[in-house]
Amino acid sequence: MAEEKNNASSRRKFIQQTALVGAGAMLASPLQLFSQNNELTMSKNIKSRGYAAKDNSGKLSAWEFERRPVGDNDILIDIKYASICHSDIHQMKGDWGPQQYPQVPGHEIVGVVSAVGKNVTKFKVGDRAGVGCMVDSCMQCDSCKHGEEHYCEKGQTLFTYGNPDKTAPTGITQGGYSNNIVVRDHFAVHIPAHISFQEAAPLLCAGITTYSPLMQANFKVGDKVGVAGVGGLGHLAVKLAVSKGAEVYAFTTSADKVKDILAWGAKEVVVVDNLAKLTPYKAKLDYMISTIPAQFDVAAYASTVKPYGHFTQVGMPVGFQLNLSNIGLAMSRVNFNASLIGGIPETQEVIHYCADNNVLPQIQVIKANEINDAWTKVLNKQARYRYVIDASSF
Amino acid sequence: MAEEKNNASSRRKFIQQTALVGAGAMLASPLQLFSQNNELTMSKNIKSRGYAAKDNSGKLSAWEFERRPVGDNDILIDIKYASICHSDIHQMKGDWGPQQYPQVPGHEIVGVVSAVGKNVTKFKVGDRAGVGCMVDSCMQCDSCKHGEEHYCEKGQTLFTYGNPDKTAPTGITQGGYSNNIVVRDHFAVHIPAHISFQEAAPLLCAGITTYSPLMQANFKVGDKVGVAGVGGLGHLAVKLAVSKGAEVYAFTTSADKVKDILAWGAKEVVVVDNLAKLTPYKAKLDYMISTIPAQFDVAAYASTVKPYGHFTQVGMPVGFQLNLSNIGLAMSRVNFNASLIGGIPETQEVIHYCADNNVLPQIQVIKANEINDAWTKVLNKQARYRYVIDASSF
Repeated sequence: MAEEKNNASSRRKFIQQTALVGAGAMLASPLQLFSQNNELTMSKNIKSRGYAAKDNSGKLSAWEFERRPVGDNDILIDIKYASICHSDIHQMKGDWGPQQYPQVPGHEIVGVVSAVGKNVTKFKVGDRAGVGCMVDSCMQCDSCKHGEEHYCEKGQTLFTYGNPDKTAPTGITQGGYSNNIVVRDHFAVHIPAHISFQEAAPLLCAGITTYSPLMQANFKVGDKVGVAGVGGLGHLAVKLAVSKGAEVYAFTTSADKVKDILAWGAKEVVVVDNLAKLTPYKAKLDYMISTIPAQFDVAAYASTVKPYGHFTQVGMPVGFQLNLSNIGLAMSRVNFNASLIGGIPETQEVIHYCADNNVLPQIQVIKANEINDAWTKVLNKQARYRYVIDASSF
Repeated sequence: MAEEKNNASSRRKFIQQTALVGAGAMLASPLQLFSQNNELTMSKNIKSRGYAAKDNSGKLSAWEFERRPVGDNDILIDIKYASICHSDIHQMKGDWGPQQYPQVPGHEIVGVVSAVGKNVTKFKVGDRAGVGCMVDSCMQCDSCKHGEEHYCEKGQTLFTYGNPDKTAPTGITQGGYSNNIVVRDHFAVHIPAHISFQEAAPLLCAGITTYSPLMQANFKVGDKVGVAGVGGLGHLAVKLAVSKGAEVYAFTTSADKVKDILAWGAKEVVVVDNLAKLTPYKAKLDYMISTIPAQFDVAAYASTVKPYGHFTQVGMPVGFQLNLSNIGLAMSRVNFNASLIGGIPETQEVIHYCADNNVLPQIQVIKANEINDAWTKVLNKQARYRYVIDASSF
């Protein structure tokens, strides 16, 4: 795919002299960029530093690596913040299959555009930009042409880290726990000025991954919407559903989250310390989204939805495999589906929506050397509710 | 539930003198019935003989047992035929949990009414009647009152065999591999004269179990409907979907079924000897029903349905547990649901529909002493397509 991006000679022929404009003051080192030879930026590999998994231990450490040169359709983003998704941990530990290491995780990425390829019109240097879970696709098939690049019919959706990538000097895509990223312009979105970088970052995965199925569910104002699992994704699902007018029922295993969840506007919070706690909610909800990223009793949770309603699973367990009781699902008559992030237009939409409506993640900003500790806390359900890494610490 | 049915004194007080009318000639031994003291029929246990599992070996043998007396709301059916469902085998082998033995399987039951309780108006002696997968429920809840007795909200759906039943002399319900059955009138359906007993029997489970989700799917004439697994249930699903105007795509692992399936009107038959055979059908179907009664790659089969379409699983695997790829389901964007038989009104509907439209199962009639051999053939996918036991051989 996009083999022409590798053609360094064509890239050299059409060097675009990018210039800092407007938002230049937001760049970490604008003078450094000015002093850089643009021709080099467009033809030579980009030097990056970040945190990488070197094995499946679930521990990260500092790593210096290279990214591809900025191609004709690419932008270079100086990363300001990248937030931590449970998926980062799953993948680095090999929960979803064997991985190539070193691998830099991170698919909730925000920063400032510091260079653009000659064909790029979507961004200019100085723009605030974000990158989510994918960085390329075929761009030719019906799905890609209609804003569902994550469902590329040619199977060419290129995920932000760990996917084989001929254009990458390391052979795989490398994610956002780093100080910069090169990405095809189409796969970056604009971050409006009225939302902070820190608060925008989690929207790139947690936000869109919950927003997309909530919109697909097409619930009406006043409908009862359940959210199962109130972590990074779930807490945004609660806030988004409340903002869209739902009466929200949150289901968590953490009693100490109840106060927060009610403060976000949930109608009720159910602490599911045993499955019997679900019984009073049988067939009560119009819709439920589950962000639980592990094995759980799908049919028991789904039974809280009214017959013929829908239940969406967005959390991805080990091996992506979910075990469910077919007779349990038959008894509830609930439709089970799964959802995977969202397309680029919808990702842009959720960012505008959240910025415009003040739907913001509850975050904790950390330094690079705190990532391993933060991962442990995510696994222990101690995150409140999204860790955001300050990229200046890489 | 329905404790009053045990009240022998009230039963004795209101003995209904039932009389043979009209269809009396169809009774196996009408004279025998005439000579029977009705008071005894209504107050004493009914003697039955049939074939029972004595353990979880999956082998049956002859057994004599007793059923409850015919209560005020009950009918006694002289069974003419009972057909073999894969569920019978699953349950007797303990695949769905430990069982009490001896246990008589069978929930596709047809015969002639030979006695009715004093409150019964739905049937009269001599009527042709059928019994399916359930024999009682609370009859008070919204589900029961609206024809979904199999989804009784009080959890009181009483399945035809193996369910604890205080009214049963053996302590559990005993099924239809026998010469008679006592059942609450509401849970029997009429078998019209223009369908044979033999061909009606499989409709009581295989028919309703596929008809109900097909109707729920609400497909339009010309829509592409997939049927995965073409055994007892699947072959009726093919015939029903064809009859309702669908363009049917059948998926089987048995190459030697292709000719039959095409003869029933299927548009295409795909022999899925490996999952790659599904690839050309990706996102092609409007709806799919799977009758596969074992573990299989749900997400791979579901991927044949168009995004946002529905896939219904009616086959029940060991432990009722299905393992599915959540990411695979996300990629296809298909709604997965399960369905469990159908309610009594809809069971009556499918029988009328099949009789009126000549939608008939393809059957093989056997004697009681051939049951064990037939079970082996069902497990080996050699049934073509439903074994029907002649109850005169018990």
